[in-house]
Parts: sequence; C-alpha cells; structure tokens
Amino acid sequence: MQFASRLDNVETSAIRELFKLLGTPGIISFAGGFPDSAMFDVEGLKEASAKALNEEPGGALQYGATEGYEPLRTQLSAFMKTKGVDVAPNGLIVTTGSQQALDLLGKTMISPGDKVIVEGPTFLATIQCFRLYGAELISAPVDADGVKTDELEKLIAEHQPKFVYLIPTFGNPSGAMLSLERRKKVLAMAVKYQTLIVEDDPYGDLYFGEAPPPSILSLSQAVPGSRELIAHCGSLSKVLSPGLRIGWMIAPAELLAKATMCKQFSDAHTSTFAQATAAQYLKSGRMPATLANVRKVYGERAKAMGAALKRELGDAIEFTQPNGGLFFWARLTGANGKIADANVLAKKAIEQLVAFVPGAPFFASNPDVSTLRLSFATANVEKIEEGIARLGKAL
Amino acid sequence: MQFASRLDNVETSAIRELFKLLGTPGIISFAGGFPDSAMFDVEGLKEASAKALNEEPGGALQYGATEGYEPLRTQLSAFMKTKGVDVAPNGLIVTTGSQQALDLLGKTMISPGDKVIVEGPTFLATIQCFRLYGAELISAPVDADGVKTDELEKLIAEHQPKFVYLIPTFGNPSGAMLSLERRKKVLAMAVKYQTLIVEDDPYGDLYFGEAPPPSILSLSQAVPGSRELIAHCGSLSKVLSPGLRIGWMIAPAELLAKATMCKQFSDAHTSTFAQATAAQYLKSGRMPATLANVRKVYGERAKAMGAALKRELGDAIEFTQPNGGLFFWARLTGANGKIADANVLAKKAIEQLVAFVPGAPFFASNPDVSTLRLSFATANVEKIEEGIARLGKAL
Repeated sequence: MQFASRLDNVETSAIRELFKLLGTPGIISFAGGFPDSAMFDVEGLKEASAKALNEEPGGALQYGATEGYEPLRTQLSAFMKTKGVDVAPNGLIVTTGSQQALDLLGKTMISPGDKVIVEGPTFLATIQCFRLYGAELISAPVDADGVKTDELEKLIAEHQPKFVYLIPTFGNPSGAMLSLERRKKVLAMAVKYQTLIVEDDPYGDLYFGEAPPPSILSLSQAVPGSRELIAHCGSLSKVLSPGLRIGWMIAPAELLAKATMCKQFSDAHTSTFAQATAAQYLKSGRMPATLANVRKVYGERAKAMGAALKRELGDAIEFTQPNGGLFFWARLTGANGKIADANVLAKKAIEQLVAFVPGAPFFASNPDVSTLRLSFATANVEKIEEGIARLGKAL
Repeated sequence: MQFASRLDNVETSAIRELFKLLGTPGIISFAGGFPDSAMFDVEGLKEASAKALNEEPGGALQYGATEGYEPLRTQLSAFMKTKGVDVAPNGLIVTTGSQQALDLLGKTMISPGDKVIVEGPTFLATIQCFRLYGAELISAPVDADGVKTDELEKLIAEHQPKFVYLIPTFGNPSGAMLSLERRKKVLAMAVKYQTLIVEDDPYGDLYFGEAPPPSILSLSQAVPGSRELIAHCGSLSKVLSPGLRIGWMIAPAELLAKATMCKQFSDAHTSTFAQATAAQYLKSGRMPATLANVRKVYGERAKAMGAALKRELGDAIEFTQPNGGLFFWARLTGANGKIADANVLAKKAIEQLVAFVPGAPFFASNPDVSTLRLSFATANVEKIEEGIARLGKAL
C-alpha cells in the first residue's frame, strides 16, 4: 500500500518503546503527561451531564454547528473574561481538545515547505502535527523565563515564518513561565514583523502561588495592531477532564472562518454531548473550587519533587522549580562522573522501577540528550519521594 | 493573512446560502441530513452515561488510547458480528464520527494530485474533505442499483486511483442500494486491479423492509485476497445519536496503524466520555429495539413522501422509492413545461415555505442541475404531505 507522501515527514515516537514498559508491576511513573484521575470532579460532571440530557437532549445528542455549541461558547467567553480576555462567543470556536486546534492551524496555515518557529524544547505532538502538513520547524531556545526573545527576533527576521508557536505559561515540557517583559517583546515583534503568534495555553490555570502574568492574548488588547496577530488555544483537559476533549481557539475572524471550514471536513463538530456537559459544568459554578483544588494538590507534589530531587540527586541535576503546570524539566550535569545522558539513565531507571521521559525528542532540532522531563501530577507525595530515591539509586 | 495552498482546492458550500433561509418561520424543511431528535433514546443514553461515570470515571474522563476505548472497541466488534463481519476489537479504530474516518483516509492516503474515484453524486463533505488533501476526484455514474460497475471498471483501469470511495447502501444523496451482483463485481475489481475500496456505511442499519445485501466488507470474507483491500467506515450517528460523534473504521492493519498515527496528531483520541457512554449503551441491550423503532418510523415517512411526490408532482419528477436511509434522490423531468432546474425550483419552494437541496453540488464533476435531494427524516407524515403539496405548488 502506498501512503501519502506527508507521512514521510514524521517518525513513530521515539518514546513509544519506553511507554510500553510502564505497565511493569510496581513501577512509579513520572513519564505521563496526564492529570491525576483522582482529581476529577466526578460528582460535578455527573450532575452536569444529567442536566444536559434532561434540559437539552435535542441539543446534546443532535448534530451541532461546526463552530461549537452556543451555550458552551457563551460559557467559554465568560471563562476567558475571568482571565482578562474580552472575546465574544462567536470570537472562539470549540475544538476536539486543543490538539485539534493545532491540527486546524496546520491544515489552515501550513503549505509544504513553510517555516514555523517553535520553542526548543516544545510539545512532541505539535512537532509531529505541523510536520504532517509539511512544515519546516525552527527551534528558538528557552531558559527559565521562557523563550529567549532576542534569539526569537533574529530567527523571525531570518526565516519569515508562517507563524510562531509558543506555550508561554508552564510549557510542556519546559515548565517555564515567559516573563511579563518577554511577553511584551513578543507582542512588539508580532507587530513589527506582522507575524502570527500562536499561544497554546493548556496550563495557564494551573499555578501554585501567585498567578502568572496575563496571557499574550490578554496583553495584546493594550498593544495597538497586535490582537489581530494572535491565535490562542485553551483547554479543559488539564484542569477538569481530558476525556471530554474540549478545547477552544480564539483567533482573528478570517483565520477562524477558514479553520471552521477545515474542521467541518475533519469531524463535522466536537461532540455536542461533551460540549453540553462542559457548558453545564461551567454554568454550575463549581469551576473555581475545582481550580483551587488542583492548584493546591499539584503544588504540594511539585514542592515534594523539587525537594526530593535536590536531596537525592544533588549537583548531578539542574532544574528550575516550576510555579505551575505538570512538569519538571531538568538537565543531568554529569557532576562527579554521574550519568549525563538521559537515555542511558532512563534504561537504568526502569531497572529501579521508576520512569521518566528523556528530553531529546522534544527538540525539533539540535536535541539536548542531557535533558529529561518528570511529571509530578499522578503520584502522591509519598510515591514521589520513593520514586526520586529510586532515581537517585539509578544515577 | 496567507493561508495554506490546499484551501484553494475547496469552495464554501454552494448550499450554505440556502441553509441560512431554513430559519424562516413556518418552513417545512426536507433539506437537512439529520436524523429526527425525537427518535433519540434519551432515557437509554442517560442511563448509559450515568453508568459510565459511576463504574469507570477514571476511564471515561481521562486521556485514552488513540485507537479507541477498549470496552467500546469490544462492543463494536460484537455489533459488527451481528452484521456478518468478523473483526477483532483491535481490527477497528474509533473515530470522532465517520467524518473523521474520511479525514484520516485523506491524510493517510492522498498525496496532492492523487486520483480518487467517487460516486456521482456523492456525500458533499467527502468531496471537500478529499480535495483539501489535494485529491483529483473522478465521478462514477450511479443508477437505482448503485454505482454502474461497468463504468467503474473502465475508470479504475484508466485512472489507477489511490482508492475508490463508495456509499453502497442507501447512499447520501442517491438513496440507492448497490445490488448483490454489483457488490461482488466491486470485490472482483478490487482484487484484479489491487485497488483499495472504501465502503462508507452510515445508513446500512436503517432499512425499511428486507435487510440489504451484506456489506462489501462482509462479502470480502469469502473472496480470497479481497479483505485486505477494504476499508469500512461505520457510525452511530444515524441510528443512535450524532452528538456522541462515534464512528469507527475497519481497515487492513498497516493502513489502520498509519491512520492511528494521523489521528494521534489530529485530536489525540475521541472523547472517552462519549465512548464510555456508547459502550454502556451497546452493552445495555437496548440497540435492537432502537433500530426497530427508527426503521419503522423512517419507513412510514419514506412511504408517505413517495406517495405524496407521485400525487402532487406526477410526471414532472422521477425517483426510485428508497428502501432505507434518510433520502429521496429525484430528477425534474420538465414534463409539460414544468421547471427542470432544481436551483430555480429551490428558490420558488422557499417562497412556498418548503425547502430541499438541489443536487448539483453533490457531483464532483458534471453536475446534473435537474436533480434534487429530499430528506424524509425530520418531518412527520402530516408535515411531509403538507410540504410536498407546497412543493407541487412551487413547481
């Protein structure tokens, strides 16, 4: 069978083999990108779904508009308002998870050979998604304050990309938070080079202490000419439930219209059953308590993991303590002759019944094999301490 | 903003303007492709969704495998068994409606410039979906027994298409049922020319009298070498609920693996919440009664529409009475100087407060402007009689 040529641009994930080992009995896994199932507000979602089917069965079970179910668009508009963004319900479309927003951006914007700038490292599925549409990806380096804007500006000027893709707040895998100053620089660059900025924001609600700076989209409201250059992707997956597959995209009207047309031929619309349930949930007023709860629990876990890493791995590892999200991003220093290659450590770790993800696959170019990603989301504090002790042993 | 070049291959739907008029008060619409919301088994789905959240909240609300939620794959395997198809749960993937199966086939198989043979007429969203991936579509003519296999063979030999896309059973819009003899011919052609056949089957369960011939996939089990050349798309949208967005694809292992990879970067997976609900529903044993009910009600409506068309439009219209599905496909004859252009009639019909869809947009090439599609699904018998009387007046 002869497949489409676009498939030549992607490889099967290098970490797929690792994931097969995660079923080993007794393993403590820091490898996943999942929230903790125990944190889901099952009662709230049960009520919301029953209400959706009782009050609006014709809407929840019938075909719906490609743009999204109107009551959910209204709720999402109000939700964005609490985050400092003014957007009318028809200024956003509902997507089947924010993964679909990425796919629609690829389908709508990328012709084969087009250049797209991403962070190095960035979300693995973004790399593969854009490459399937023929994008040539260029990596902009990241530090603890997010993407280095000086380097980013040079790359924009040199490559004139179709767009720049950023996860500015607690990015996967970097965990970094783009500083307010750099956010403003990104907006200035968007205007100066007339470049579309895609802000992927699935983790922004998941902060542990002080709230992060406003989103790039929110800040764009005060920078003349910049709002029309921002596409913003949101998601309920990390804070409420990934199984609903509810994401959304806010973008300039013309882009939103083209993306809607592409969505029509991708899946017609996102499950109205899931949309009506999400709308009822947001309407129920339970979201603030849910957010407070996940912030508290994940915050404790992040703190425990940071302390354990320092205690057990000492100067053999470097990292910035994340202020939100689900991940530690770390670098093996090789101090005192310790292992400095995360692929090697991953194999030894599995022998000690602990798992993480090596960082190299998260780079679209120039992979740094000393890096690794550790999720603190799914193990409790006790397991985190035990798992990191095992990691110390493996090292 | 400069969009991807693939968007140049599609136009905004010609019937979109028409659909805007459907909100006119008092209109009777035969234009939609929807099932009737009043037919949904709301009670059964309420129970199923409550059960899914009570018994398996971790599964229903968490990320899931791209291939599909295991309990649903098991139920769909059993459902296919009742339709004469032996397929293991891992021989199918769950898709976000069968529209997504089409999208994944396009993404996986079609390189720009590849040829694909479709029926003339065929499903509008298929035309647009495949064109977005750069397909050149070739139309094979259809009569009351489905695609004309002699013509199809000539086209396959001449064009060596990437695949042939058929809706063999009560197709949208043709309503035609491919005869058993022709199904066998299609299988022989698949083997002779080593051509992939895509069988889209959202309407096969919706028959009014005798069951239709077995699906092409089912028949392929008895034709050596043909099973590996069939991709089959199924859906719960027409018989249970479109809002769930649950479809599935059965295909050769290699194609299924590539389509799964493409799905991973399209939407990660179909809503596990919707999948777990669908699995519980199928497991509950309510499906046979639901099928019996929709067959009975839609059958009565089809009968009423056929009689009304004969009574009110006489020899100005030609059609074959459909034995299943949701649609009449008809041709204006122009007898006695009556209108012979369905676009002209559509405008006059709206003035008389009745709507249908002109047939021309359903042709990938050589549109026949005398054709039209009428859905009998959403209006009851009384409305159907009133609506067709109005149509007679418009004519």
